[in-house]
Amino acid sequence: MSRIAYVNGHYRNLRDACVNIEDRGYQFSDGVYEVCEIRDGRLVDMPRHMARLQRSLGELRIAMPMPLSALSVVMREVVRRNRVGYGIVYLQITRGVARRDHAFPPDAVRPGVVVTARSLSRARNEATAARGIAVITVPENRWPRVDIKSVSLLPNVLAKQAARDRGAYEAWYVDGDGLVTEGSSSNAWIVTRQGSVVTRSARSGILSGITRSVLIEVMEALQVRFEERPFSPAEARDAAEAFVTSASQIVMPVVSVDGQPIGDGMPGEISRRLRQEFHRFSTFS
Amino acid sequence: MSRIAYVNGHYRNLRDACVNIEDRGYQFSDGVYEVCEIRDGRLVDMPRHMARLQRSLGELRIAMPMPLSALSVVMREVVRRNRVGYGIVYLQITRGVARRDHAFPPDAVRPGVVVTARSLSRARNEATAARGIAVITVPENRWPRVDIKSVSLLPNVLAKQAARDRGAYEAWYVDGDGLVTEGSSSNAWIVTRQGSVVTRSARSGILSGITRSVLIEVMEALQVRFEERPFSPAEARDAAEAFVTSASQIVMPVVSVDGQPIGDGMPGEISRRLRQEFHRFSTFS
Repeated sequence: MSRIAYVNGHYRNLRDACVNIEDRGYQFSDGVYEVCEIRDGRLVDMPRHMARLQRSLGELRIAMPMPLSALSVVMREVVRRNRVGYGIVYLQITRGVARRDHAFPPDAVRPGVVVTARSLSRARNEATAARGIAVITVPENRWPRVDIKSVSLLPNVLAKQAARDRGAYEAWYVDGDGLVTEGSSSNAWIVTRQGSVVTRSARSGILSGITRSVLIEVMEALQVRFEERPFSPAEARDAAEAFVTSASQIVMPVVSVDGQPIGDGMPGEISRRLRQEFHRFSTFS
Repeated sequence: MSRIAYVNGHYRNLRDACVNIEDRGYQFSDGVYEVCEIRDGRLVDMPRHMARLQRSLGELRIAMPMPLSALSVVMREVVRRNRVGYGIVYLQITRGVARRDHAFPPDAVRPGVVVTARSLSRARNEATAARGIAVITVPENRWPRVDIKSVSLLPNVLAKQAARDRGAYEAWYVDGDGLVTEGSSSNAWIVTRQGSVVTRSARSGILSGITRSVLIEVMEALQVRFEERPFSPAEARDAAEAFVTSASQIVMPVVSVDGQPIGDGMPGEISRRLRQEFHRFSTFS
């Protein structure tokens, strides 16, 4: 089956789905995006994703291209047309098409909207989660506005590739104070030997992850001890467990950091439990 | 006349010129670009632009999509088809189209190539140069790999827009040491009251500008005193002259920094002379 994408008002075969070369997303990375998990054909935690989208657009002064309700309809329609039961839906909104100039276009242009969806293999994801993933650390080198979920992702691309080059799956950024900020496409967590789950505050240095914020509520409900504070790579290497969170991975156990095994080198109990329980606390739409 | 663009092997009307939504330039700003000046229908300083392009691609491990000679042919053909006598030609090369994943695609993909050209008004540019432009300063907040001329330009977009919002034309970044790095789309220069032209070394914090490097040779030939060192906004405000350089502006006089006039608030003599003499030292192809 060929994949279907929504592009500026039309549903297209992915092969024919294109944007103008003067779309500012293409020439300036002047746009934002969201990735939502799809489960049983439904979109997970959409209201939070839509709230973050609105915030990202507002920070860049990009107009909402259509009401949130209409955007949700489009996203669900793309999921339906691609018959995705388990997978992800991707939404990108850019400032639109305008003659190339760094500054915002002087006249209002219509923001560009692209939506794609694709199936993932649940079996493969669960197999990965059962093994756990390897993480490396890299120096934080991104601009400070990582709170905006923009497509200006080249630094993240290079960090992710650095991980791949070293046989790992994700790269954790380490800031100038020697503390982990987040992964190239995920939030970073550890579980201390005392059984406390630790992650950095979303007030600085990281994107406020949706899976992250839901997981904090999951832990409250399950009465899992939680500390919101940064940690160092050394503390991570010495931790009982570690994991990353993102919409496409939910809770993904980390079994090594910079080549050193975490705990016994297998996914930890708390990580596995949080992964299992997560969707009891999600919203579906 | 409708504008013509080259897109992945085809010449298209700009309106119909498009790239796939999974082009990594669009989703990850995973690509590089060059802008060359066109004068009398010829491309200015192409060999240097092509050398920098190769370096940028190499740093990102993006393959050269075609021999440099073929790329030059395409660029000249786009200039010709758009009948540009005076203006700019824009070249963008991205990693290509692949299913969305931060890391480089596992299989070799064909890099994407887009070339556009457009006429500029020489009279308008000269009028701007005769008046000079206003500059503001903003904190440096870009990733350190500004030596790669990538399309990951959202920070530059926001800096340029901050300038516009304050009635200025360009924004100069100021690093953590309180020193100017470069503009959002230009290199930054001052002329001291002692008649020395000053700009930061390209070894750190800036892109190695082509116009910048040619201008250094111009100054050698004209025996203009030159110091390659950083300067602060305070030194700029106290300078005799200031200007910016870029392929589309060549030497553009700066007449105020953060609202404070430079010199007598008019374009300076050395700036004007360098602007006039510049093309005697350029190559044309």
